[in-house]
Amino acid sequence: MDEQKPTYEALGVSSQKEDVHDAIKHEDGGLFPDAFCKIIPDIAQDPTYCSLVHADGAGTKSSLAYMMFTETGDLSYFNGIVQDSVVMNVDDVLCVGADSSFLLSNTIGRNKKLISGAVIKTIIHAYETFLHKLRDMGLPISSCGGETADVGDLVRTLIVDSTLVARMKRQDVITAKNIQPGDVIVGLSSSGKTNYEDVEYNSGIGSNGLTLARHGLLNHQYYSKFPECHSPEIEEKWTFFGQHSLHDKVPHTNLTVGEAILSPTRTYTPILLDLFKSHRPELHAIFHNTGGGQTKCLKFGSNLHFVKNDLLPLPPLFELIQKSSGTDWSEMYRVFNMGHRMEIVCSEGFAQNSVLKIAKKYDLEAKIIGHVERVENAPTSKAHGSNRLTIESPMGTFNY
Amino acid sequence: MDEQKPTYEALGVSSQKEDVHDAIKHEDGGLFPDAFCKIIPDIAQDPTYCSLVHADGAGTKSSLAYMMFTETGDLSYFNGIVQDSVVMNVDDVLCVGADSSFLLSNTIGRNKKLISGAVIKTIIHAYETFLHKLRDMGLPISSCGGETADVGDLVRTLIVDSTLVARMKRQDVITAKNIQPGDVIVGLSSSGKTNYEDVEYNSGIGSNGLTLARHGLLNHQYYSKFPECHSPEIEEKWTFFGQHSLHDKVPHTNLTVGEAILSPTRTYTPILLDLFKSHRPELHAIFHNTGGGQTKCLKFGSNLHFVKNDLLPLPPLFELIQKSSGTDWSEMYRVFNMGHRMEIVCSEGFAQNSVLKIAKKYDLEAKIIGHVERVENAPTSKAHGSNRLTIESPMGTFNY
Repeated sequence: MDEQKPTYEALGVSSQKEDVHDAIKHEDGGLFPDAFCKIIPDIAQDPTYCSLVHADGAGTKSSLAYMMFTETGDLSYFNGIVQDSVVMNVDDVLCVGADSSFLLSNTIGRNKKLISGAVIKTIIHAYETFLHKLRDMGLPISSCGGETADVGDLVRTLIVDSTLVARMKRQDVITAKNIQPGDVIVGLSSSGKTNYEDVEYNSGIGSNGLTLARHGLLNHQYYSKFPECHSPEIEEKWTFFGQHSLHDKVPHTNLTVGEAILSPTRTYTPILLDLFKSHRPELHAIFHNTGGGQTKCLKFGSNLHFVKNDLLPLPPLFELIQKSSGTDWSEMYRVFNMGHRMEIVCSEGFAQNSVLKIAKKYDLEAKIIGHVERVENAPTSKAHGSNRLTIESPMGTFNY
Repeated sequence: MDEQKPTYEALGVSSQKEDVHDAIKHEDGGLFPDAFCKIIPDIAQDPTYCSLVHADGAGTKSSLAYMMFTETGDLSYFNGIVQDSVVMNVDDVLCVGADSSFLLSNTIGRNKKLISGAVIKTIIHAYETFLHKLRDMGLPISSCGGETADVGDLVRTLIVDSTLVARMKRQDVITAKNIQPGDVIVGLSSSGKTNYEDVEYNSGIGSNGLTLARHGLLNHQYYSKFPECHSPEIEEKWTFFGQHSLHDKVPHTNLTVGEAILSPTRTYTPILLDLFKSHRPELHAIFHNTGGGQTKCLKFGSNLHFVKNDLLPLPPLFELIQKSSGTDWSEMYRVFNMGHRMEIVCSEGFAQNSVLKIAKKYDLEAKIIGHVERVENAPTSKAHGSNRLTIESPMGTFNY
């Protein structure tokens, strides 16, 4: 492996999306600028309600599903991609406390020469199946169909995006405004096995950092084997520069590398719905550690110092990614969720008496992983730039 | 040019989307299966209302905007792409008669190595500008932000998709069920200049058939000049196999070939809103000639014979595409709108007294281009497969 260390930038991805944030900085922040998602006035024009339209997708994980399908002939890898695409929306929108009415639409873009009708059929069926599962968990979500476009001149293999529409009472909205110094941060594990998931073991990868995970784990045989799965604009030395085949085992798990990176993104729907039922005012903030990984919290509130000093054990896949790719640990925490993908900010008493108990009910590993302090001597500022984050981990202490 | 004639299939696009339709054939058709868009129960749970979530985008037109930007340095080509992406949704949803409440979200996927922050900024600004224009036309549409993802391993250049949410009274929904034998079809021109558009002249291309338009018009110099703008899975002989440079003039227009294929998709918002105001029950059906071009009507109603025998003059760009690409005329009508992108099915009297007069108010060329007959001796069938379409044009008579 090259002596240099890769950065997410070198792979053509900005984990912090600086230029995107610059592009939208003059955009209207909506009704609740401190909320996790943009919230707008109600589509039904009821002033006591509000609406959300949220877009996200499976990202480059679909490219990996295509690789595994090509190697094994197993269409079911695309089921997980659909779950990824849906959960990336649902769990974002749950962070603001929405729980009453959801509509979901999809946008699928394919290279028809590589992605057959059978794949599209699998994907569309998987949407129906997964929405059914979410309804069984108590989430009132309906399917609105979607659009499948043949756009081989744009899409190398397959894109699976979703858009989620929600509506809720304004008084129910959870924003970061209620965070109090002294609050604790509960981390909900992204890996392992809950009692509401079908998989034997979830690697915890979610749907973020997949570009680094794919290129940093997989070895260079895939460069020529799957030219349709990498951008030719990325230097060859950073394309599939890892140490593994798709079929190698991930240590301490029963999964292959391919299976582990394709672990479907866990939803936290059952736990969050339970919390909303009777404890809404106790939830000071909920953060979904997606783009930006463990640094996501920095974008909400002001003059807050998030201290994460007792993280959940690092799931084996993240350790393997670091080892195989040589990525700095501080970058690892900026790109991946590293073990917990959902954070609940609340009082310590509420965490102990409610959040951890409800998580236990679902066999979901959870613990208090840190707390929030006021940034001392900070200039009075409303900007998120006044926030700080310290991660103290066995891999070192990192300040963001 | 090759003696063979290209088909849209050879270019990796199914104009009829057979396998997509096969994949969704068991999907719930919604509350009004005869409506142009899928309509679902109201998100606000009012039984007298219904909701729509609609997804579409600029398709491969964004790849062409990238080419023109690369050749000229002019960022403004991306403004048109945004209009394409929005109008492909708005005008679809107007076909069911929605006019009271719209929310729009976007999903942008880019290859960060090729698409800079300045391009993203242009695109996001263009969304705000164009939604403002739509509001000026009387459409109550709000922006909900969106998602920009760096996915170079999936996207060769740029994808600009949008999702539109609407809500309306159930009693206001327009479906194809009201079509009567003897009804006429009014075609609303896709080309020229209306008094509500900024462009000097719109080529009429819209956002469909762009794969054939690009490859069939542009010559082979672009094969090696823009490898990032074509799918390597398509045979080289069908990749940029046309006769023109981006900078050649389109005969009878002041536009270059590049400008003409990038003409922003015209919206019919002002005319349709005017018609909805007082004439809703007279509108027996509205068809947006998008994927499938002039054959779109075949997908709605049953036992109907659509006869289009007095089409608007063919805009010069479509003639040039046919000449440059050698595409069969019958295929041309199946891929492109060929002159009118919106069809209103109504009584002849209503067409003369209202539709044509309202179109005139906006300097929009319109005429009765055909009529609807009952298919004689047809087996009683609810399936759209029982429909027929005859196009009688100076280029020949075509039966679908």
